[in-house]
Amino acid sequence: MRFQRFADRYIARLESGEQTIETLTKFLGSEGIEFANISAAGAVSHVRLGYWNAQSREYEFRDFDEQLEVVSFQGNSALKDDAPFLHLHGVFARRDFSVVAGHIKEARVHPTLEIWLRSERVPVRRAHDATSGLDLLDLPKWNA
Amino acid sequence: MRFQRFADRYIARLESGEQTIETLTKFLGSEGIEFANISAAGAVSHVRLGYWNAQSREYEFRDFDEQLEVVSFQGNSALKDDAPFLHLHGVFARRDFSVVAGHIKEARVHPTLEIWLRSERVPVRRAHDATSGLDLLDLPKWNA
Amino acid sequence: MRFQRFADRYIARLESGEQTIETLTKFLGSEGIEFANISAAGAVSHVRLGYWNAQSREYEFRDFDEQLEVVSFQGNSALKDDAPFLHLHGVFARRDFSVVAGHIKEARVHPTLEIWLRSERVPVRRAHDATSGLDLLDLPKWNA
Repeated sequence: MRFQRFADRYIARLESGEQTIETLTKFLGSEGIEFANISAAGAVSHVRLGYWNAQSREYEFRDFDEQLEVVSFQGNSALKDDAPFLHLHGVFARRDFSVVAGHIKEARVHPTLEIWLRSERVPVRRAHDATSGLDLLDLPKWNA
Repeated sequence: MRFQRFADRYIARLESGEQTIETLTKFLGSEGIEFANISAAGAVSHVRLGYWNAQSREYEFRDFDEQLEVVSFQGNSALKDDAPFLHLHGVFARRDFSVVAGHIKEARVHPTLEIWLRSERVPVRRAHDATSGLDLLDLPKWNA
Repeated sequence: MRFQRFADRYIARLESGEQTIETLTKFLGSEGIEFANISAAGAVSHVRLGYWNAQSREYEFRDFDEQLEVVSFQGNSALKDDAPFLHLHGVFARRDFSVVAGHIKEARVHPTLEIWLRSERVPVRRAHDATSGLDLLDLPKWNA
């Protein structure tokens, strides 16, 4: 991984063979980033996508072992049990320009993934939500 | 809805059952936000998508009543008749990892939608464009 | 093209008939922007999409001559041979709400494309990579 920092923003590049979630999580911990908004463009040779089933309240995963363009990549990193935890969704384009898409469980970069990251100085945490079974952002309630 | 503010930026979370456009529009009005760039990731149980037909110059809408991952969500809020008006496009992933996509007319969140919002202090307005029949961003012309 | 600047950020609008890559590249040069993160939403009447073939290490292109919603648009501009060079990926929705997606070689706007641009004061350059045959972001290596 390579990166350049501009105050609270970063442009980073993952290199061929690097695992996106694993590498980014280590990087966020190393930089002490407690909240970041993230987007990216590039390509991968494998992605494991998830779909949250509202009936079972569990993720269903599928692996795509092919060269794919990363055509959308959005999400954030917040703290779960005091460590950075990524929540990223993506769209991946095939050779015929059709797509597969979902929650990004993991993705192996090839040959490059250009990541834009904006950090905040204020920590944001995730807390377990019993209804959904998910770890949701623990934010103050809006009193509309 | 829940949110945290960082100077001119916000991380917000819509909760299960909330209507995205309706709730965000109220929130932007309440915060007095006159322009914002917006992105998001999460999931919905319903979305009403639009396609602008260049021949008829009218939107065609279709409802999708199913649990979908929000895999891309981009756009902005500007002023139309002095009130916040959202222009958002999105991509939504199905259980088989295929997608439906278009202009977001409305979307019902389930179980969570994490929204990133960057506001500006300068108001940006929309003005009616007779040629397209749409309300376009009223910005100064670039003299190239 | 029309635009408004907020310090180091811009909201811009491309108008009907304008070529996205050509017009944006001229604009970036004119403003002296040496790095920018870019996103957009709107619609086009034509797009030329690319897929990078990992075997041949060359792009394969296809033209789509139809009215499409721009439902995702992400990437950046960095310097290649001292001039702005755009790297943008996108997802485009058809009248039936299905999509085509890939690397954006060129796109003709109709009737509007709303572009969000965040510039940085520090130049970022691309350098030729012999392994992939691509011009990758030339960033300092992270010593994990």
